Amino acid sequence: MKLATLKDSTRDGRLVVVSKDLTRCSEVGHIARTLQAALDDWRHVGPRLAGVAEGLETGAQPSMRFHEHEAASPLPRAYQRVVGAAYVNHIELERKARGVEMPGSFWTDPLICQSGSGSFLAPRESIMVADEAWDIDFEGEVAVIVDDVQMGASVEQARDVIRLVMLANDVSLRGLVPAEPTKGSGLFQSRPSTALSPLAVTPDELGEAWDGGKLQLPLLVSLNGQPFGRANAGVDMTFDFGQLVAHAARTRPLVAGSIIGSGSMSNRLDGGPGKPVGEGGVGYSCITEIRMAETIEKGAAATPFLNFGDRVRMEMQDGDGHSIFGAIEQTVAKYEKA
Amino acid sequence: MKLATLKDSTRDGRLVVVSKDLTRCSEVGHIARTLQAALDDWRHVGPRLAGVAEGLETGAQPSMRFHEHEAASPLPRAYQRVVGAAYVNHIELERKARGVEMPGSFWTDPLICQSGSGSFLAPRESIMVADEAWDIDFEGEVAVIVDDVQMGASVEQARDVIRLVMLANDVSLRGLVPAEPTKGSGLFQSRPSTALSPLAVTPDELGEAWDGGKLQLPLLVSLNGQPFGRANAGVDMTFDFGQLVAHAARTRPLVAGSIIGSGSMSNRLDGGPGKPVGEGGVGYSCITEIRMAETIEKGAAATPFLNFGDRVRMEMQDGDGHSIFGAIEQTVAKYEKA
Repeated sequence: MKLATLKDSTRDGRLVVVSKDLTRCSEVGHIARTLQAALDDWRHVGPRLAGVAEGLETGAQPSMRFHEHEAASPLPRAYQRVVGAAYVNHIELERKARGVEMPGSFWTDPLICQSGSGSFLAPRESIMVADEAWDIDFEGEVAVIVDDVQMGASVEQARDVIRLVMLANDVSLRGLVPAEPTKGSGLFQSRPSTALSPLAVTPDELGEAWDGGKLQLPLLVSLNGQPFGRANAGVDMTFDFGQLVAHAARTRPLVAGSIIGSGSMSNRLDGGPGKPVGEGGVGYSCITEIRMAETIEKGAAATPFLNFGDRVRMEMQDGDGHSIFGAIEQTVAKYEKA
Repeated sequence: MKLATLKDSTRDGRLVVVSKDLTRCSEVGHIARTLQAALDDWRHVGPRLAGVAEGLETGAQPSMRFHEHEAASPLPRAYQRVVGAAYVNHIELERKARGVEMPGSFWTDPLICQSGSGSFLAPRESIMVADEAWDIDFEGEVAVIVDDVQMGASVEQARDVIRLVMLANDVSLRGLVPAEPTKGSGLFQSRPSTALSPLAVTPDELGEAWDGGKLQLPLLVSLNGQPFGRANAGVDMTFDFGQLVAHAARTRPLVAGSIIGSGSMSNRLDGGPGKPVGEGGVGYSCITEIRMAETIEKGAAATPFLNFGDRVRMEMQDGDGHSIFGAIEQTVAKYEKA
């Protein structure tokens, strides 16, 4: 089943079930007004929503047109978000570009960050930044939404509570990173609001592309209409979502509706950095990575960070070329304080 | 006005207005079912709740007994939490004990962390930890709940949106810190669920003890019934709540209901670490700090971290010895996975 949240006058929007082809949707306020309300009682609400989804495909269910641009992020605000660094290749390249060695433990112990979840951008909402000099970057990733996870859950238990899968653009302000404290506290100002894809879909909707912990499909990233990346989310993902969730739940329970992101996607090429799409490679899921590759190969980064007016697009398609999650499509714009 | 959340069968409990002396409370489900619902529309709801609070004091308002042990944390789950390191003295001592120099910028740039907010412990709920060897510690702090904060808000604007003040016990697992990645990602597993005080109170309730950004009162911390700390929250707080909130809002808006914590409280003595309460000092707000003082003064830490069965209590009293926020009172217990 595919779920979306339509923008309305409330902070959490209203939940709708969307048809597989993303053209139609059904109101489900009588079952659950919001996605968080559905997740709060998934055992009872999930099957009822699945019934609506079935009726939507057969035509038995009243429906209306669905427009991606009317969607908020599936959870406009969430109680918990964790972002991993599951594509360790990305971290290794970053260290290599800086000439610093990466601890070997990074290949065996998942690295996760407590991340902001109070204000997600809508999938078509502008990325508002006060200053271009903050080196604005996107980061394409896959994210899952889990049910309640008990403290100490095993990897297998963690895989079983993954309820929904979606895409995320984890916007970063790379220029603010050096000024953030480096020890213990993590990044904050350099990690502004993230955007999620219009649709969050149940794992069964992904067929064989979902193996229980990874999504075996390329993320199509474009910048100003030009292909920028098509890295496969299932390739070089050192830690799957079950491992990330279990790692996050080691010392605390996770509340239903918690979002776990993969971190910036990254595929290797011959053990090293990938090649741009224009040169036949799978490209990159963030600007930082192409800059790291340029630094390693040519001694200096050449690709600029985002400027005001730049457009970023992220999408994933099934084998027939149909959009699975709808598209994240954002323009970078100058933020002026009201 | 004083607000509390009573535990019930729902995830967010139900909001009540509590009398100034903490003995009685009034149901306000007809105004706002939960504290988050009240914060979502504070402009309209706040004055109505204040009317109930007034009626509660005059006896015009129907009421019932209030018992602190029936209270959940004011927000059992929240959309955003930021914890600062406002008492820079604490950080400096920690570095000194390790023989490492602290960057001077720590005195001028607030250090803040994205913190977990998905599952707060109730004020009397046990601190469940799987392993004593993880070096279990408490951290006494003051925390505020803000209204919506626009991106780029000034310090003055940030002070104006502080709606509620409360206490927090930011539980830490010090033994897990060394294994957490040290760069960029911050702490996660070593920061399990936090407990909040039974009451969250509006700043006007604090009288002259609240100067708009700091609370000028001692936090009474006891361990197994013995006084452990009475550091004054208004002393040596290098950054006030207005500064912490503005720092957090520099590159993103903060959603109504966001919690901003001060970080572990710490008062200096003659420019150095404080003395234990038993030796006439104001003591400490966490075990780590007394261990740092011991390390600096005697070459080695002597005070042990918490063991299963240990009891921690935190409270703040007004000039007449009345409890302002009720007490956080927690026992450490062994967590066994179900």
